[in-house]
Amino acid sequence: MSQPYTYEYFTVTFPAEHQYVAHVEINRPAKLNAFIEAMWHELSNLINRLSTDPSIRAIVLSGAGPKAFTAGLDVHAASQGTLSPSDNTEEPLDPARKATQLRRHILEFQHCISTLEKCEKPVIVAMHGFSLGLAIDLSVAADVRVCAADVRFAVKEVDIGLAADIGTLSRLPKVVGSFGWVKEVSLSGREFGAEEALRVGFVSRVFKDKEEAVKGALGLAALIAGKSPVAVQGTKELLNWSRDRSVEDGLRYTAVWNSAALQTRDVEAALLSGIQKRKPTFEKL
Amino acid sequence: MSQPYTYEYFTVTFPAEHQYVAHVEINRPAKLNAFIEAMWHELSNLINRLSTDPSIRAIVLSGAGPKAFTAGLDVHAASQGTLSPSDNTEEPLDPARKATQLRRHILEFQHCISTLEKCEKPVIVAMHGFSLGLAIDLSVAADVRVCAADVRFAVKEVDIGLAADIGTLSRLPKVVGSFGWVKEVSLSGREFGAEEALRVGFVSRVFKDKEEAVKGALGLAALIAGKSPVAVQGTKELLNWSRDRSVEDGLRYTAVWNSAALQTRDVEAALLSGIQKRKPTFEKL
Amino acid sequence: MSQPYTYEYFTVTFPAEHQYVAHVEINRPAKLNAFIEAMWHELSNLINRLSTDPSIRAIVLSGAGPKAFTAGLDVHAASQGTLSPSDNTEEPLDPARKATQLRRHILEFQHCISTLEKCEKPVIVAMHGFSLGLAIDLSVAADVRVCAADVRFAVKEVDIGLAADIGTLSRLPKVVGSFGWVKEVSLSGREFGAEEALRVGFVSRVFKDKEEAVKGALGLAALIAGKSPVAVQGTKELLNWSRDRSVEDGLRYTAVWNSAALQTRDVEAALLSGIQKRKPTFEKL
Amino acid sequence: MSQPYTYEYFTVTFPAEHQYVAHVEINRPAKLNAFIEAMWHELSNLINRLSTDPSIRAIVLSGAGPKAFTAGLDVHAASQGTLSPSDNTEEPLDPARKATQLRRHILEFQHCISTLEKCEKPVIVAMHGFSLGLAIDLSVAADVRVCAADVRFAVKEVDIGLAADIGTLSRLPKVVGSFGWVKEVSLSGREFGAEEALRVGFVSRVFKDKEEAVKGALGLAALIAGKSPVAVQGTKELLNWSRDRSVEDGLRYTAVWNSAALQTRDVEAALLSGIQKRKPTFEKL
Amino acid sequence: MSQPYTYEYFTVTFPAEHQYVAHVEINRPAKLNAFIEAMWHELSNLINRLSTDPSIRAIVLSGAGPKAFTAGLDVHAASQGTLSPSDNTEEPLDPARKATQLRRHILEFQHCISTLEKCEKPVIVAMHGFSLGLAIDLSVAADVRVCAADVRFAVKEVDIGLAADIGTLSRLPKVVGSFGWVKEVSLSGREFGAEEALRVGFVSRVFKDKEEAVKGALGLAALIAGKSPVAVQGTKELLNWSRDRSVEDGLRYTAVWNSAALQTRDVEAALLSGIQKRKPTFEKL
Amino acid sequence: MSQPYTYEYFTVTFPAEHQYVAHVEINRPAKLNAFIEAMWHELSNLINRLSTDPSIRAIVLSGAGPKAFTAGLDVHAASQGTLSPSDNTEEPLDPARKATQLRRHILEFQHCISTLEKCEKPVIVAMHGFSLGLAIDLSVAADVRVCAADVRFAVKEVDIGLAADIGTLSRLPKVVGSFGWVKEVSLSGREFGAEEALRVGFVSRVFKDKEEAVKGALGLAALIAGKSPVAVQGTKELLNWSRDRSVEDGLRYTAVWNSAALQTRDVEAALLSGIQKRKPTFEKL
Repeated sequence: MSQPYTYEYFTVTFPAEHQYVAHVEINRPAKLNAFIEAMWHELSNLINRLSTDPSIRAIVLSGAGPKAFTAGLDVHAASQGTLSPSDNTEEPLDPARKATQLRRHILEFQHCISTLEKCEKPVIVAMHGFSLGLAIDLSVAADVRVCAADVRFAVKEVDIGLAADIGTLSRLPKVVGSFGWVKEVSLSGREFGAEEALRVGFVSRVFKDKEEAVKGALGLAALIAGKSPVAVQGTKELLNWSRDRSVEDGLRYTAVWNSAALQTRDVEAALLSGIQKRKPTFEKL
Repeated sequence: MSQPYTYEYFTVTFPAEHQYVAHVEINRPAKLNAFIEAMWHELSNLINRLSTDPSIRAIVLSGAGPKAFTAGLDVHAASQGTLSPSDNTEEPLDPARKATQLRRHILEFQHCISTLEKCEKPVIVAMHGFSLGLAIDLSVAADVRVCAADVRFAVKEVDIGLAADIGTLSRLPKVVGSFGWVKEVSLSGREFGAEEALRVGFVSRVFKDKEEAVKGALGLAALIAGKSPVAVQGTKELLNWSRDRSVEDGLRYTAVWNSAALQTRDVEAALLSGIQKRKPTFEKL
Repeated sequence: MSQPYTYEYFTVTFPAEHQYVAHVEINRPAKLNAFIEAMWHELSNLINRLSTDPSIRAIVLSGAGPKAFTAGLDVHAASQGTLSPSDNTEEPLDPARKATQLRRHILEFQHCISTLEKCEKPVIVAMHGFSLGLAIDLSVAADVRVCAADVRFAVKEVDIGLAADIGTLSRLPKVVGSFGWVKEVSLSGREFGAEEALRVGFVSRVFKDKEEAVKGALGLAALIAGKSPVAVQGTKELLNWSRDRSVEDGLRYTAVWNSAALQTRDVEAALLSGIQKRKPTFEKL
Repeated sequence: MSQPYTYEYFTVTFPAEHQYVAHVEINRPAKLNAFIEAMWHELSNLINRLSTDPSIRAIVLSGAGPKAFTAGLDVHAASQGTLSPSDNTEEPLDPARKATQLRRHILEFQHCISTLEKCEKPVIVAMHGFSLGLAIDLSVAADVRVCAADVRFAVKEVDIGLAADIGTLSRLPKVVGSFGWVKEVSLSGREFGAEEALRVGFVSRVFKDKEEAVKGALGLAALIAGKSPVAVQGTKELLNWSRDRSVEDGLRYTAVWNSAALQTRDVEAALLSGIQKRKPTFEKL
Repeated sequence: MSQPYTYEYFTVTFPAEHQYVAHVEINRPAKLNAFIEAMWHELSNLINRLSTDPSIRAIVLSGAGPKAFTAGLDVHAASQGTLSPSDNTEEPLDPARKATQLRRHILEFQHCISTLEKCEKPVIVAMHGFSLGLAIDLSVAADVRVCAADVRFAVKEVDIGLAADIGTLSRLPKVVGSFGWVKEVSLSGREFGAEEALRVGFVSRVFKDKEEAVKGALGLAALIAGKSPVAVQGTKELLNWSRDRSVEDGLRYTAVWNSAALQTRDVEAALLSGIQKRKPTFEKL
Repeated sequence: MSQPYTYEYFTVTFPAEHQYVAHVEINRPAKLNAFIEAMWHELSNLINRLSTDPSIRAIVLSGAGPKAFTAGLDVHAASQGTLSPSDNTEEPLDPARKATQLRRHILEFQHCISTLEKCEKPVIVAMHGFSLGLAIDLSVAADVRVCAADVRFAVKEVDIGLAADIGTLSRLPKVVGSFGWVKEVSLSGREFGAEEALRVGFVSRVFKDKEEAVKGALGLAALIAGKSPVAVQGTKELLNWSRDRSVEDGLRYTAVWNSAALQTRDVEAALLSGIQKRKPTFEKL
């Protein structure tokens, strides 16, 4: 906890005006914030730390520079690594052994990105400019998505000969309502903009530019961070659990979860501050 | 069946102009129809009776008075009961034993509200004014939601320090398409109105005021009540089953269900009346 | 493969201007393309052939004639068959034995329509005019839906005394976001048009007339057919798998799938053509 | 709680020598303890009361008289009711409406028997003599089964023309390991005895006669009743939950459950009594 | 139905002494009944016919000749086909395209073997001599397994460099109780005999030789074939459904299934013949 | 890989006579190999390394010293940590915040033990002497269990006031066939020995003493390590996947898995060595 949040490819700041909020910026603007392998490990690592850091209650994720949230996977780097047609080993692996290597690699990559979903604190993503490929995988693993008017989204993977495998195809159909729309953009790789993203429910709000989008995301984060962390973290967990299960299983898990959570002193604090018309304060979590 | 539908906190009427329709009104307007424990038991009890009452084929649920469908849980009452920080028992229970009490309480509360979902007949909810907290839990357990233009919705629980546990977090993501929007309103507790509710698909229609909303709901109920009850009740059941399961399991259950349902005389009656251009009549169910 | 695609109730053409695209037309316009039993067997058969035909990468399904995509099940024919109130056998079957007959019949019918979903290639449905009952079952088993402005949709089954059992009730809630809307149209059987269909996400695009709709569908099919077939077919499969399962199970299946798929030469071809700014060509699949 | 446990068809006693143990006897020996409808409602009612009675920690279920645990459904009574070939109503219901009646009846019957599974306290069944049909449904809904050497088991339903529908076909495959054996006895309806039941894992122990079986069951109940009720009730719940779900879902639910349960004072009491070599006492639950 | 059951690799007979029973023999004894591709298509075809043949109520599957039920896949044939290291095509397929071919092949092979599980009538397998590899896949897709004392079982696939993919790894853990034993025999490929198979619950009975095993299987088939086909076919279906789902889902599906099935005249016939102490006769199904 | 397998609480050796086999010993014999927190992190770490170490194909886990495989959790250490009744913090946490701490702790502990299940290579556990509590959690996460005749097993957790939460209650019912037996030993905490463990299928073999058990486990590991690693690792994965899912989902995942795995050169090597009657060699994986 005392160790600073210093990373090579990410800037982590704690805006003074927004208590309990962390702002994480993807910071490789010269390359349109494209991801190389070291970056998803760093991201996973820092999100895991924020997840249990008691001084943090909500997180905003955005991209440095004016041009892109992220242009996705750094294909140039990947084509010399994982996506490389030839192996580096002297004798080529047979396709089954190559598949084992690839499977391990994909599972590890997925695991890093899923950190956003498993993070105990809500994560709000503010996107602008190029937001391609991995940008979609990242953002659907988060909780709320907002964007700038200039955003250019695409499920781009199909254009480099592969099915998106870091989460888009598993999460996007559960994030927006129209399965036909999901199929159309995933099969065609075509771009879509802010307005369309809002209409289908992919983003919750559109802001006029990047500054406003980040500001809006921070404002929402601050609003959430002002609530009881017991209530907020329970809400995120219960929504994610229920998404993947029957209503019956959702209800039962909820009852068990709240059988401990309702014993918090936050309920009393919240009720009292409601009566007293003042902002409640809640203990750390 | 011969026993009248008389309840302390609910008014049940059978509009003469709408055959087979029951209109249930939450009737505690002095308290903005806020719920105390006796109310959810009463509601469960009356819905269960309507569920198998052969003279009823569709149900409308609304709130008495001009101000609220329901303002949610009666927090004042609850804070002296379940949500109370101190136990009434002389020696305080340990947190595990307190959790058992809370779990039983939540499960029973959920069970009562789920009666709306398990009810064999469709339930249409017409909401107006304050429709907070439990209002959302109630309405997502029903089949169709409509509202008046003045409605004020909020997943309010987070503001009293708890994660909503009577159904909202399990059902809302399956009722509207945008998971990001669900998370935003559930994590922030912010209000949303009729127009937004329509846009995200939470309600199917917005009416100019409460009278129109109730009238609209009754009209839809009457339309449905005019159809074959075998077809209508099968449709409700099969949609609810399929929501929680794979398409494969949905199809098979449907085939087994309809292997009995298709043997109804209603198909013949419906086809014949179609040819004869007259309204069909169907036997009780 | 050398055998021509000749069918009694369907016309299959391969538009010269759209490489790798098949256009399937329901061809019984004198009866508004209503389905008799022979038709769903034919459809299943031809889609299964296209599914593994290496010269096909995307499929468009539309209806012949100016009036209807399809008016649904041919009720006249069905009322003399399956839906018949009396059996043809001398001594009537008991209801359990009748149920066995009906169950087998429904399962076989479902199985034929599910061919569209199981087809390895994307299927785009272009609908116009009457698109009732079975039209919905068919179209929700496909991948993308577009329509003409004159389309008249209805989940019509409730009006002939039965719950829709060929897929609508299992798939429609997973195709559009608003469960309340799905329930309303399924319980009431009411018509809805192109604009409403677009708003709720049932169709992706509305065209001014049938010609434009078919042209638009073929254009989308051609766009998809120009991509790597390894990427496209993987994307369809992974989206369908994930729809019915948890994100966790979706991610793992995806990793295993792509452990073979990433070994395609298409990735190199796609990357190279990206650099060289030319259209890639991909081997057959 | 102050109300006595007095029932028409069941005897409930609280053996003085076994603290916290209830002994429930099916008490219709003149009819080999065969079940009529009133009986499953009574059983459900009394088990529900014991489930939350803080003075009870384990339950034994056995049958009165020397000849039978229960011979199953009272077919004579049922053939004049539910299983009756002709309806009592003047005009016979169509098969779809009759199916609705039957479905409601079966669901309610299942619901009553499932009370044994949902009961928070462990239920041990001691069987002897005729233990046919419903005896199997009942016993597989309980936690542990023991029997006397003279027991005569059979999944008898197939012999009266029906598939067992009160739980045997859903639970028996999860209670014993050999699915082939389950199929054989369920499809053939053949009898099996104590030794075979022990070998396949249907019963845990065989005693020489009814007295010993009941005594053995009470002894096991007393052993369990001497443990921490927080630990025992958690163990039953977590085993039942996990049986029906993936290991992953089992583990997570377990962690949430124990996050409250571990806060019990029972852990300290148990550890201390272990050190002090004396029997621990635990607060009520 | 009038068409004879004549197949190249299977002999189908209808033992005069066992009404409603079909006996299917794998008939390629010169090759130890090893399977080539044409065989699984034939088997699937004939089982599908028996599944809905009203004159058949139970099926026995065994192997011709004294030496083997089946030695499994004909590896010699397969190594020139599917398992061949080199493709027959001039230019080798890339591993992704090869994977598509293999996946289609495996899915089709699985589909054929699953016919035994989906067959509406119970299938009893009588095994003797070599019963290796595919023998296990086949037998676990059936309902009941018996064997001769000389049987030699092995999950042999691991010894030819592959994980069993035609059903053993998915079904064997659900057929026998000890998951550790399943893993041991599947990972080591070691042989096990009749006694061990009986002990772990893989087979239900061991007979002294092949003749006795087939006779025993036919006897069990005849016993089952004498019961109500409504009851028997329901029992098979409900057990298979419940195996893969939660108890809750099993119970509900059962209630819906029996809501039609209980309307059979077989219940009355069975009850009456019970009273009259004579063998009931049931209508065809 | 070049780094030695050196750990504080575990000894890892590579028996010269068993190629590709790792032998892991729990090494805290002075405390009966009881686990403190550092140990499960070490175990997880070392198993993860072995999981992808190409020179290892099978793993044996046993306990150092003559007295115990492991006596379970070091309760003395735990009672000063997690299980401590009082918090170390100055102001005590409210029960909801304490629950968050406990939940994180349990999830992390579970995650470490699940490493045995997720390990790509088979893990065989050889148990002797005291094998209590955590010993069961550990062993059911492994693949095969063997034991010495002197072993003393118990699901001991109930005796210290808690429900087992590190895997036993989720996995034991899927490892042995008799659910009643699982409940009995889990609810009573009673000891059971080698013979009973063998009878219920908890262990696959019993050896006369620890030396023989370890030797037997190493022999089995060596047998497995001699097979194709592609086949062995696929078999483990497919069995674990299928255990938790429907047969349908098991079959499909298997087909996708093997579509890459069958492209291994191991099939040819295995077939060839079968013809040439010599031991095959397989490339690293």
